[in-house]
Amino acid sequence: MKFTTETSTDGVIERDFLMDDVTGVLWTPESPSEFEDEGAPLVLMGHSGGLDKRSPGLVARALDLVARHGFSVAAVDAPGHGDRPRNEQDRRWVDAMFRAREAGESIVPIVTEYNASLAERAVPEWRAVIDELQALPAIGQDAPIGYGGMTLGTAIGLLLTAADPRIRAASFGSVLVYDDLTEAAGRITVPVQFLLAWDDPEIPRETGLALFDAFASPKKTLHANPGRHGQTPWHEIESTTAFYRRNLTPLTPR
Amino acid sequence: MKFTTETSTDGVIERDFLMDDVTGVLWTPESPSEFEDEGAPLVLMGHSGGLDKRSPGLVARALDLVARHGFSVAAVDAPGHGDRPRNEQDRRWVDAMFRAREAGESIVPIVTEYNASLAERAVPEWRAVIDELQALPAIGQDAPIGYGGMTLGTAIGLLLTAADPRIRAASFGSVLVYDDLTEAAGRITVPVQFLLAWDDPEIPRETGLALFDAFASPKKTLHANPGRHGQTPWHEIESTTAFYRRNLTPLTPR
Repeated sequence: MKFTTETSTDGVIERDFLMDDVTGVLWTPESPSEFEDEGAPLVLMGHSGGLDKRSPGLVARALDLVARHGFSVAAVDAPGHGDRPRNEQDRRWVDAMFRAREAGESIVPIVTEYNASLAERAVPEWRAVIDELQALPAIGQDAPIGYGGMTLGTAIGLLLTAADPRIRAASFGSVLVYDDLTEAAGRITVPVQFLLAWDDPEIPRETGLALFDAFASPKKTLHANPGRHGQTPWHEIESTTAFYRRNLTPLTPR
Repeated sequence: MKFTTETSTDGVIERDFLMDDVTGVLWTPESPSEFEDEGAPLVLMGHSGGLDKRSPGLVARALDLVARHGFSVAAVDAPGHGDRPRNEQDRRWVDAMFRAREAGESIVPIVTEYNASLAERAVPEWRAVIDELQALPAIGQDAPIGYGGMTLGTAIGLLLTAADPRIRAASFGSVLVYDDLTEAAGRITVPVQFLLAWDDPEIPRETGLALFDAFASPKKTLHANPGRHGQTPWHEIESTTAFYRRNLTPLTPR
């Protein structure tokens, strides 16, 4: 892992990094936090489909967690997203998606296939990034690790959380569900939060409820709100922070 | 409204009151809070079926809201609950419930009928109690009013919130649904939180999801957690507090 930029604003150090061809960003608090001894929690954030590691919503959530709560946050671009060139197969999927949309056809089968391929490729990348992050003095081996992401970020996160025992709590949200995701949910036992868009024209409510039901986690919590995905109200961001705090920090829960 | 006792512990003044034959309790903060000018928010708490105004869970939530957040909280006994004698018809329902349970039969039809009767009687009582509370200097006409309650407390609260525009935000939870409740939800437009027990052997999940769907409120949020009703995790109590704070206080939401 190679750091390519470093800036510092309002108590937050932001560093771009490159690991092989994976582009990412790491936000850490400038001053030691309340977690000094145990290692501040690290949250891995997965962006949604078509967005990237610096989409405004992701950055807002990251800065809030770092500046107000002393966490560290890392985000990477999914294959073919953000600063990473799109390969030919991915280009074909994206083109097919646009064509289907223009023709007024459902994009669901294409997005599902595309997401499945991206998720499969992203999991080993994330695992290697975790290895490197844990080797940094600013993070360390003891930092409790959480994951958060919606749509594509959920598809990737479900497979990653099912595969990597270092992830100790995860926040997911509205996603096009396919069998591998339901199967992964059934293998996840760490605490899970699931944010469901109650009136999403593209993702049927029932598939989200069934996915939530599939998690094997004894501690799981579903939060549903009106609107479509991408319209998560800010109070759920606060809920997500509370979720990470109670599951990733040594604070005694009430 | 006549106060019959007054004690003060850990910054909270607790007063029993009697209004006609309705027994209740009012908790207010001992010292003026951050809300001094606007009037501290008042939360009306409805107890669950078979419990009363001093059930431990209700008292814990009330003391937390008053001591930590400067709110006022009022609770009343439902007809035939707590300090209020049960009339003959209610006794017949309770007896029928016990007989059905012993015979291994469903208590749902009996509880539904009993709850419907209790809710119908409780609404005018609550409305009269609100009149009296608003006349107290410790509360005042400007105090924003919220409601919270599960099961029977939800049945009563749904009818009350639909009927009384003074209630500006309400937290409900798992309840045996009957038509009048769904109809009331359809007339409710204030912000609503709904706490759903995901695996309740007595209350089918689907009826809770349908009730949440029926609320006309543009701001509504569903929180589902494993377990049966009565097993709401403490983090949802924190969520409820955040819900009241963002909907009943002048704090600018982010």
